[in-house]
Amino acid sequence: MQLTGKQLIGADIVAEGTTTFHGYTPHNGQPTATTFYEATDAEIDRAVALADNAFWTYRKTLDVQRAAFLEAIATEILALGIDLIDMASQESALPTARIEGERGRTVAQLRLFATFIRDETWVRPISSPLQLQKMPNGEPAMLHQRQIALGPVAVFGASNFPLAFSVAGGDTVSALAAGCPVVFKAHPAHPATCEMVGRAILNAAQQTGMPGGVFSLVHGASNRVGERLVQHPAIKAVGFTGSFRGGKALYDLAVRRPEPIPVYAEMGSTNPVFFLPGALVGQSDQLAASFAASVTQGVGQFCTNPGLFVTSDTATNFTTELARQLSAMPTGTMLTAGIQQAYSHGIMHQRSVAGTQQPTPWTGNGAQPHLLLTSVENALQHPELSEEVFGPSTVGVLAQSKEELLSFARQLTGHLTATIHGTEADLAEYADLVDILTTKVGRLVFNGFPTGVEVNHAMVHGGPFPATTDSRSTSVGTTAIYRFTRPICFQGFPGGTV
Amino acid sequence: MQLTGKQLIGADIVAEGTTTFHGYTPHNGQPTATTFYEATDAEIDRAVALADNAFWTYRKTLDVQRAAFLEAIATEILALGIDLIDMASQESALPTARIEGERGRTVAQLRLFATFIRDETWVRPISSPLQLQKMPNGEPAMLHQRQIALGPVAVFGASNFPLAFSVAGGDTVSALAAGCPVVFKAHPAHPATCEMVGRAILNAAQQTGMPGGVFSLVHGASNRVGERLVQHPAIKAVGFTGSFRGGKALYDLAVRRPEPIPVYAEMGSTNPVFFLPGALVGQSDQLAASFAASVTQGVGQFCTNPGLFVTSDTATNFTTELARQLSAMPTGTMLTAGIQQAYSHGIMHQRSVAGTQQPTPWTGNGAQPHLLLTSVENALQHPELSEEVFGPSTVGVLAQSKEELLSFARQLTGHLTATIHGTEADLAEYADLVDILTTKVGRLVFNGFPTGVEVNHAMVHGGPFPATTDSRSTSVGTTAIYRFTRPICFQGFPGGTV
Repeated sequence: MQLTGKQLIGADIVAEGTTTFHGYTPHNGQPTATTFYEATDAEIDRAVALADNAFWTYRKTLDVQRAAFLEAIATEILALGIDLIDMASQESALPTARIEGERGRTVAQLRLFATFIRDETWVRPISSPLQLQKMPNGEPAMLHQRQIALGPVAVFGASNFPLAFSVAGGDTVSALAAGCPVVFKAHPAHPATCEMVGRAILNAAQQTGMPGGVFSLVHGASNRVGERLVQHPAIKAVGFTGSFRGGKALYDLAVRRPEPIPVYAEMGSTNPVFFLPGALVGQSDQLAASFAASVTQGVGQFCTNPGLFVTSDTATNFTTELARQLSAMPTGTMLTAGIQQAYSHGIMHQRSVAGTQQPTPWTGNGAQPHLLLTSVENALQHPELSEEVFGPSTVGVLAQSKEELLSFARQLTGHLTATIHGTEADLAEYADLVDILTTKVGRLVFNGFPTGVEVNHAMVHGGPFPATTDSRSTSVGTTAIYRFTRPICFQGFPGGTV
Repeated sequence: MQLTGKQLIGADIVAEGTTTFHGYTPHNGQPTATTFYEATDAEIDRAVALADNAFWTYRKTLDVQRAAFLEAIATEILALGIDLIDMASQESALPTARIEGERGRTVAQLRLFATFIRDETWVRPISSPLQLQKMPNGEPAMLHQRQIALGPVAVFGASNFPLAFSVAGGDTVSALAAGCPVVFKAHPAHPATCEMVGRAILNAAQQTGMPGGVFSLVHGASNRVGERLVQHPAIKAVGFTGSFRGGKALYDLAVRRPEPIPVYAEMGSTNPVFFLPGALVGQSDQLAASFAASVTQGVGQFCTNPGLFVTSDTATNFTTELARQLSAMPTGTMLTAGIQQAYSHGIMHQRSVAGTQQPTPWTGNGAQPHLLLTSVENALQHPELSEEVFGPSTVGVLAQSKEELLSFARQLTGHLTATIHGTEADLAEYADLVDILTTKVGRLVFNGFPTGVEVNHAMVHGGPFPATTDSRSTSVGTTAIYRFTRPICFQGFPGGTV
């Protein structure tokens, strides 16, 4: 595929602006070949106007038609072959095996949503007879409720999953499945990958007879592009995965619009892991190795990366082995120079906090895995130790007692996940911990690791603020579709509904 | 019952403040007997702290326990007998027959939610096996999703339904059913009715062993009380029924909190009714009479009051008969002096707009039923004609053609309901109208009237902004419960879930 660096607006590939930027190869710090053009205000407005126009056709497509569209996207993505794998790997510094796995997940996700909407009960149909209205034949008039599409959706991709949380990722798929056109803001950290996948979606739209404007993609390295998109009156919802600062800024814009709209921003968290006493008996080395692998997976660049763990201050075998494991792991290359810099600053700040132990070496260069230990008392005094440092590090909080562990759990803010490692006896003994964590997270894991968010019907990848801006939703799994729908009911129509 | 005029905070009946106000009898303009005390900041904070504390117990009550609580509330409300009917009628100027009907609806609503949560599938359970995590027996670990309660909810009652949309109304019932404690801001237009129902709820809570603080009620005639409530960090959602100004102000406060929370404000609309050509053939007099009854029901003080209708400019038989019917109807007494004043101002403003016909008399005094007619062209030039004037009035927009009718429909903002009167042939001919209205409302009615919102499983009493602040929800019907829940999933727990 010959890359253009231009906007994909409906079927048009255009660039009217003069502001340009380049992608970047994290491995060598060099810009990538293609020049990308920032979308102009007029281009953004045209993409949204086309989406708004497409909505009137697209919202009435049959479920099976949209399912075919999603499946065609999957086929088109696979048809990009090794070129897509190479480009995504080049732009993200993630190894090709990981990108291949991510492509598999992206394609499976498209197919899962296609299957999901082929079952017509996905619209949550509910019927009730009325007491006050009769039909001409004297029967009670009926009320039929179902979910319908909200309208055009603006989607912002994440840097850390250039396929699965980007152009054809969970937000786009669930919006398209619901019947909502998508205007996608390409991520400037992998613009070439974005163009490739965007064009695959346009090919699929054309093949399956979808209306022009059902999908558009706009580029931009500045905040202006996303800000204009979110404030456009025809945009009816926003999907975002990324930083707290970015997600909260979009939320603040959206709720201040003359017509406020929902924003589903998944902003990450530290996903605390609790190692209870029974978990460590006879297997602390094995657990330390598994935990070190979870902390450093994908250079620690996972929304569900366990950046915080809590255990007894007597678990020295575990923490010693964890330090040894993390120290032995290689320094990785992060997604962008900015993320690398933020990681270094974050670790250096953590190391400057009084009352901490730092059993892993720290050169100050690169994405070196890192462990910091502190007491519950000190962690409660320094809440910044519990905040996310995006990357391959974790902070261990050591409790002197069960009560101290619970007191730390009680003051946690919202997280995507929390995890408990223990025996069934631990679980009974620490029932209060389960109870507390249930109020703090979207997913509670027992004897597993939070990384590795499988796409299925039951998944919840969400959680109370500040993990997301809307705890009533998930951005992974089929129930993600209901972020982009609303209920309507039809009363007294002949044949029941329209 | 001896009224106290005080706050109900958990089991305590207290008044620490010195600011007082009185209820008001609309029929004679006189204050009612009891002196009510505005809640102090400390009282509000105590009510929320108790609710927050109660949440830890209440969220774990069994569905059958909460169902018994709801049923006990119904019993306690009925036990108030004629005293409640008389007080609600006195404070609202609504006739006793209407209040009796509203009590029936309130009690039936409590029992419907009790039945609903007795069926354990109300939590929307979803299960999926995992590929990456195994249980000790080698089976795949399971992921179980379900809905759980959000936390303490602040509820604001409406003046126009002193029972069904007030203390034990739809918002309170759905929050309590979900497992959320409620702090209720009593409406200053019917504070005595509020105290009576609030004490019925507290009696029911005590009888059924619910935790202290599961329900509290605070009084206030000033905005301070509600503003403090919505901004309290332990409040996790807000339910509101009332004016656009009031609902939007609470929304604006809630989204600017350090931790933003959802606000479900039902702010009313003009609920356009379309009379298509076939509907009027041979039955325009009958339709005019039914429509006049819908416009003036409850002195026009319904959220779903049809304040706007659209028909052909040749439908003069219909409009003439409608004018005759409305002219013949008595002038009613409105809920409050403020509402009466707003109605008079609204009608006088409408009458001052150029290009309107005013076929009903207008004395300028009281809630006199009113009809105003205008052309589509003039209505599009004067959007204020399509805005809500709360009371027994309606604006008829007369179209010269089908295209003109559709162009008017296209520019409608969000409404709670829209209605189409016509034959099946009209419905086929005006398929575009059905399509347009589907994007504008929460409920689309055929050959019925929008007033009379039945409480059942399929009802949607909601709609796109500005009808509500959250089109993804309904404030009537059993799906209203999901305003106060969020999904969580449990991964890998022995026995599946906790």
